[in-house]
Amino acid sequence: KSIPSDEQYHPKNTLDAEVCTSKYMQHCYWNATRKPPPPQFLQALREYEALHQRCVGNHNLTELFVAGKVPEGCKYLVWKEQDGKGNQIMSLVSAFIYSLLTKRTLLTMPSLGHVDGSLHHLLCEPFPGSSWKLPPDFPLDAMLQQTDVQWDYFHKVDNLTKNGSESYLDASSTISPSRLYITLSNYNVPDHEDRRFFCPAEQTLLSRIPWLVLKSNNYIAAGFYFLPEYRQALNQLFPDRAMFLHAGRYLLNPRNDIWGRITRFYDGYLLNADKKIGIQVRSWKPEYNPILSEHILRCATLNNILPNVTQEDTAPPTKTPPERVTVLMTGLVAQYHHDVREKYLRNANVRGDSISVLSPSSEGVQQTGDVEHDKKALADMWLLSFMDDLVSSPKSTFGYVAHGLAGITPYVFVRWGFEDYTQYNGCERSNLAGPCYIDTPHGQECPLDPPGTRIGDPNAAVPEIQHCRNQWGVGVFPG
Amino acid sequence: KSIPSDEQYHPKNTLDAEVCTSKYMQHCYWNATRKPPPPQFLQALREYEALHQRCVGNHNLTELFVAGKVPEGCKYLVWKEQDGKGNQIMSLVSAFIYSLLTKRTLLTMPSLGHVDGSLHHLLCEPFPGSSWKLPPDFPLDAMLQQTDVQWDYFHKVDNLTKNGSESYLDASSTISPSRLYITLSNYNVPDHEDRRFFCPAEQTLLSRIPWLVLKSNNYIAAGFYFLPEYRQALNQLFPDRAMFLHAGRYLLNPRNDIWGRITRFYDGYLLNADKKIGIQVRSWKPEYNPILSEHILRCATLNNILPNVTQEDTAPPTKTPPERVTVLMTGLVAQYHHDVREKYLRNANVRGDSISVLSPSSEGVQQTGDVEHDKKALADMWLLSFMDDLVSSPKSTFGYVAHGLAGITPYVFVRWGFEDYTQYNGCERSNLAGPCYIDTPHGQECPLDPPGTRIGDPNAAVPEIQHCRNQWGVGVFPG
Ligand SMILES: Nc1nc2c(ncn2[C@@H]2O[C@H](COP(=O)(O)OP(=O)(O)O)[C@@H](O)[C@H]2O)c(=O)[nH]1
Ligand SMILES: Nc1nc2c(ncn2[C@@H]2O[C@H](COP(=O)(O)OP(=O)(O)O)[C@@H](O)[C@H]2O)c(=O)[nH]1
Repeated sequence: KSIPSDEQYHPKNTLDAEVCTSKYMQHCYWNATRKPPPPQFLQALREYEALHQRCVGNHNLTELFVAGKVPEGCKYLVWKEQDGKGNQIMSLVSAFIYSLLTKRTLLTMPSLGHVDGSLHHLLCEPFPGSSWKLPPDFPLDAMLQQTDVQWDYFHKVDNLTKNGSESYLDASSTISPSRLYITLSNYNVPDHEDRRFFCPAEQTLLSRIPWLVLKSNNYIAAGFYFLPEYRQALNQLFPDRAMFLHAGRYLLNPRNDIWGRITRFYDGYLLNADKKIGIQVRSWKPEYNPILSEHILRCATLNNILPNVTQEDTAPPTKTPPERVTVLMTGLVAQYHHDVREKYLRNANVRGDSISVLSPSSEGVQQTGDVEHDKKALADMWLLSFMDDLVSSPKSTFGYVAHGLAGITPYVFVRWGFEDYTQYNGCERSNLAGPCYIDTPHGQECPLDPPGTRIGDPNAAVPEIQHCRNQWGVGVFPG
Repeated sequence: KSIPSDEQYHPKNTLDAEVCTSKYMQHCYWNATRKPPPPQFLQALREYEALHQRCVGNHNLTELFVAGKVPEGCKYLVWKEQDGKGNQIMSLVSAFIYSLLTKRTLLTMPSLGHVDGSLHHLLCEPFPGSSWKLPPDFPLDAMLQQTDVQWDYFHKVDNLTKNGSESYLDASSTISPSRLYITLSNYNVPDHEDRRFFCPAEQTLLSRIPWLVLKSNNYIAAGFYFLPEYRQALNQLFPDRAMFLHAGRYLLNPRNDIWGRITRFYDGYLLNADKKIGIQVRSWKPEYNPILSEHILRCATLNNILPNVTQEDTAPPTKTPPERVTVLMTGLVAQYHHDVREKYLRNANVRGDSISVLSPSSEGVQQTGDVEHDKKALADMWLLSFMDDLVSSPKSTFGYVAHGLAGITPYVFVRWGFEDYTQYNGCERSNLAGPCYIDTPHGQECPLDPPGTRIGDPNAAVPEIQHCRNQWGVGVFPG
């Protein structure tokens, strides 16, 4: 399949095409429904790439960071990984969107000890001509010990403006730091003060700080829509609202060895299917629970994703040729895949379909940091994203990456892991194609903004944001 | 695919075709190389079927057996199962061949308690119009307690002829029993006296006994060639020497539920392959041993069964379209299949083939007697037999069934399970397509025959029989 070059995310680059095949071949694998990159986003990418090249250049980033300095016209955002690969991707994509919105240069830093399994090692360099990797000896952790977290700084500004004599802008001018550490995670901060990040005044404060460091496990990008300025910019960049899809297809290209795994699996096991269904089974418990298999089958058959089986020994008259349905099941525990496979091997089905159930890996337990394990995780997400339809586990950022990249509104299991799941059809179509921002702010107060300013809850003024159906959090509504 | 009806093993029978699809569809699945049933064998089958129908008829077999009586012109062979499904099939096919040679009626008796998993329950009734199943209350075990084993009887004849006054034929006429229990197994009998079964005089003695009961775990049929009379008959029945293939394709047809499993797996997972390789991994130890995976890969790559992998990240220029090679790996332990699959997912290969590695089951441990387990075993053997080429574990009757049905001379692992396997290319083409008779007689004396009569070792006079290459035992040489 060839694709007009103005529909590629990446500028034509023969050398890079060898180093990173996925950038230039990804479009051969997605379901045919065209989701072309918006021209405004492509233009923003080209501008960002120029900025990145200029602000990385030959600068000694370590020296600049330690000194709290920046070259003329440059500001930086250092991204720090947290939790599993799905969580990492949530925050990495969010960091990139934030960089686009705030004209910061995105730099990545692996966890010490996990360098090889780090995302920035597993993914291709996204930006032509200059790297996004900080050097391994970049003194990030050492410096962070002397660096304020966002709410410490916000409190300082609060204190200076408490008597009302000074505006927060004036007050902050004397205490604005050169580095600030932003954490926005699923872990509780008292009064959720980390989420003041989403207040307009706080964004103005942050915009003045040369070096920001972001640590998050969340898809905070959805929250950017709550800020009027960003909302306007996002609507220009992504008129189709497919923010994660476009940013992900641009940013998350796996390196050639992982791409090889992905395409070898696809070509060897999935190529000849007439219909490809992905089922992502996230079981947070490592023990096999037969109820989950029943739940999966209930969802698949009651929603006509897969046919019911017949109870007789003899096969019903089959279509000739039968429709070939391939089910790609990912998950840590192999038994769920075995159960579904066995169901359709033991019995014929009422549609006379030829059904194959495959699993690209079965790792048993999460081993984030183990290179081969992490490669498989990335490969599995991409493979899922090539399916024609998806069934996902709720609350799993792993699944979010898959349907986010695919641009598919997935079925999501309802009452997953609860015994009363039989009260429902097992799963329900989600309302959103992208990830949910799980730990989204709710009625978060913004004390530095005009009185009454609250952010975080979906409302009529921000129709782009909706609660995720059956899941805690908000996401971008495709409209 | 339609096939001329004179090349079907079974007489056209619309009702039976519904009850037992495999009889009339098996030819659609084997590798194209035609191995048509020899006309002499087909004629013998039709004669046998008539005999079976006549001698089963409305007779009360239980009463006849207890009384040691038979209807005019009838003699019976009762087959008793022993060990795993492969072992059982070895002796069942042998019993059927013996029935053909000796004009006995073959009847089958399940182990008590294992009725549902019994072969005679998993296989279709082979003989049109009358059953081969003995009633569940047939008092086989009770009667066997009062029944001589073959060497007990042979000793009695020995004793009567010891002083030389009487011929063994005269001597036996007074003591010839109405029932005799024949055991011929891998378990040691002192001086291997069970194997006197293969002596010509003993065969004459046995021919006079109305009811024989056979318990064996072995492919004793290969030994029938040692008996001049049988040898001549076998060469007429099977001019192509494919005794197991023809008898097996006639006799071993799985019932519709198992046939459904087989064809669903084939159609869903194997249909689109350009080349289908079967690898049967029999590991007698339940613990995973990584050396076996290396052994399998050594065999496959050094014998050009599968390509070597490349060491670079980038794939070599692939053929367009690449050759689709599907590897069907059977075995109790899933890890060997995972290892081989992972090898070809992680790396590209030098031939640019698209390689998929599949396993139809992973049962962990042998559970003979468990119905679903036994169904899978039978299904796996048949699936293997549909491959274009086979790699087998040595000494495994499970593998013998697969390549015997296929008529494929398999690669067999050399030094399987031994650390010094690396001295060899991992495996070697066998010299035989059918099973080995593992516990074959060696220089067995025949005291009732003319002095010097010994049977069992391959020799110039019996060119049909050869030692199995790299395996203990003898088999039928295709010539
Ligand atoms: N290969 C693979 N790994 C998985 C799968 N499910 C979970 N994991 C592992 O467990 C981690 C889960 O963390 P994360 O990706 O953040 O997703 P989440 O915990 O579901 O939100 C993954 O990154 C993998 O390391 C799967 O289906 N396939
Ligand atoms: N389904 C399945 N079962 C197997 C396999 N290998 C061994 N088994 C089980 O273990 C038994 C082995 O006994 P048998 O068939 O007599 O073969 P042998 O022991 O290899 O000579 C089989 O009948 C099955 O119950 C396999 O590849 N697939």
